[in-house]
Amino acid sequence: MQNIGICGAGLIGASWAIGFANAGYKSLVYDNNPDSFKNFESLFDKLIKDLLIINPELDAEKIKLNIKLNCSIEEICKDTVLIQESIIEDLEEKKKIFITLDKLASKNTILASSSSYLLISNISENVVHKQRCINAHPALPPHVVPFVEVCGSLETSSEIIQSALSLYKNANYASIIINKETEGFVLNRLQGALLNEAVRLHEGGYASMDDIDIALKHALGIRWAFMGPFEIMDLNAPEGIKDSFSRYKKGIQNLAKEQNSVPEYSDEYLSSLENEQRKRLAYSDRSDRIEKRNKMIALIRKLKLELGEDIQNG
Amino acid sequence: MQNIGICGAGLIGASWAIGFANAGYKSLVYDNNPDSFKNFESLFDKLIKDLLIINPELDAEKIKLNIKLNCSIEEICKDTVLIQESIIEDLEEKKKIFITLDKLASKNTILASSSSYLLISNISENVVHKQRCINAHPALPPHVVPFVEVCGSLETSSEIIQSALSLYKNANYASIIINKETEGFVLNRLQGALLNEAVRLHEGGYASMDDIDIALKHALGIRWAFMGPFEIMDLNAPEGIKDSFSRYKKGIQNLAKEQNSVPEYSDEYLSSLENEQRKRLAYSDRSDRIEKRNKMIALIRKLKLELGEDIQNG
Repeated sequence: MQNIGICGAGLIGASWAIGFANAGYKSLVYDNNPDSFKNFESLFDKLIKDLLIINPELDAEKIKLNIKLNCSIEEICKDTVLIQESIIEDLEEKKKIFITLDKLASKNTILASSSSYLLISNISENVVHKQRCINAHPALPPHVVPFVEVCGSLETSSEIIQSALSLYKNANYASIIINKETEGFVLNRLQGALLNEAVRLHEGGYASMDDIDIALKHALGIRWAFMGPFEIMDLNAPEGIKDSFSRYKKGIQNLAKEQNSVPEYSDEYLSSLENEQRKRLAYSDRSDRIEKRNKMIALIRKLKLELGEDIQNG
Repeated sequence: MQNIGICGAGLIGASWAIGFANAGYKSLVYDNNPDSFKNFESLFDKLIKDLLIINPELDAEKIKLNIKLNCSIEEICKDTVLIQESIIEDLEEKKKIFITLDKLASKNTILASSSSYLLISNISENVVHKQRCINAHPALPPHVVPFVEVCGSLETSSEIIQSALSLYKNANYASIIINKETEGFVLNRLQGALLNEAVRLHEGGYASMDDIDIALKHALGIRWAFMGPFEIMDLNAPEGIKDSFSRYKKGIQNLAKEQNSVPEYSDEYLSSLENEQRKRLAYSDRSDRIEKRNKMIALIRKLKLELGEDIQNG
């Protein structure tokens, strides 16, 4: 059994610990704040509940046995194939912990940061063995959406990238490789493009928050749950993807020409968003809605598994 | 029973005919090419098959009885509450047919164009009763994704817009209102923003077609199947949507600053897309994949219905 070091025991860290433990790895969990382990048990039960929807035969006890809590930082660095860092999103903190991890970890251990926006070239700036450092950014909520995008700096060795990709694939994560550093990687760049346009349309008075949400959830998003943009384009015209882009390129380019303003996200505008949103969903109902969201994701993944469209199937 | 005129009997027209007939309207279908009715029967059976997945109690015979094929253009204009135009996407053709429809139709009939990119202000330019003309753009594939975005020109009366919205809602379409004309309305503006960014990432060498598709279908898209961008942001930070945007706005704005180039979509690039795509999916397997896509959409809609997250539920 191979060991994985989990550095930071919040929601992201706990999800990683469960994901690796479920795939037969031993997860060794460290957090500099011992309080984070107090809630770990109830957090564990909550996350397992969603995972049982996807796979009712999941062995929760086995997973629990494969997770060791309250480890010291030295322990998670000894004989681990990978250390997954998921501490607070702060560059200075990440830089510090990477120096420590690099000092303590066995020489072949991969050092991966879960950071969504901070690039590994900056995080590993003062690390000695930069070649083993990568970004490995998960999706939210990570326990039911086991996705990771892997990106190295110019100093990262290609062997490390390949080893990391194999490891995440072995652990049943949908893993993609980002060939060059770019803020937001692929996931947040796609998400950001859509979000900025949603805000331009809303702030510009073209449509309400509710109507824009409807366009996504009752139209566009149903396909995107199991097909990416390129496959969708391929099926949208008789001769395939080239035919499809040839027919629509003028329209798509016209949109690109217009979709280039930077929304201000002023305090006044954000307050108006908050007001409009609270009319749709009371603040006190948000936690139920988060539970429902996780359940919905789990059920869609179960459906995709049954139809041969989930992660393992490509 | 109210009558709806369907002008153009291709895939979009057939979907509208079935959608309205299923909701208890009488669909009167016209096409200037009588050949289009030859395939209508087999097309009907195909579309009904997908609809039966969503609702196994659907009465296909009743729907068939509510659709009258081979109507003359005069017939679809007489005593119909709405005429849904879905002919070829060509401005001159649409302008011509709108003049004819406006001449023949009863004075209270709404004239709606299914056009995705052509604006009603242009389509209805030479129409006498401009106040009753709207865009009513559906999503693809329209029979399993009953969505419509309604947009008028400056000449369209607000009563017509409201009547159209009620009518589409009665016919079980998720209907949204676009307050001001804008190319691409909401659906294609959101889709275009994502598509242009997918191409920037691919053409720029950041990630492969396959990996970009994975980021959408195995991460972002699973949530978007039942939640729009604003609701997602609301659940992404402890204090709600304002908190969420305040935390991430700098990152999102940085992306907007970079996501402003207009992809060229050169012939050479589109050929490379075609080559890469054909390695993933043989040309001859595309029709099976389209069938699978429609089945997947139907199954996700069934799941949403069961969970109270489909159209009727808000």
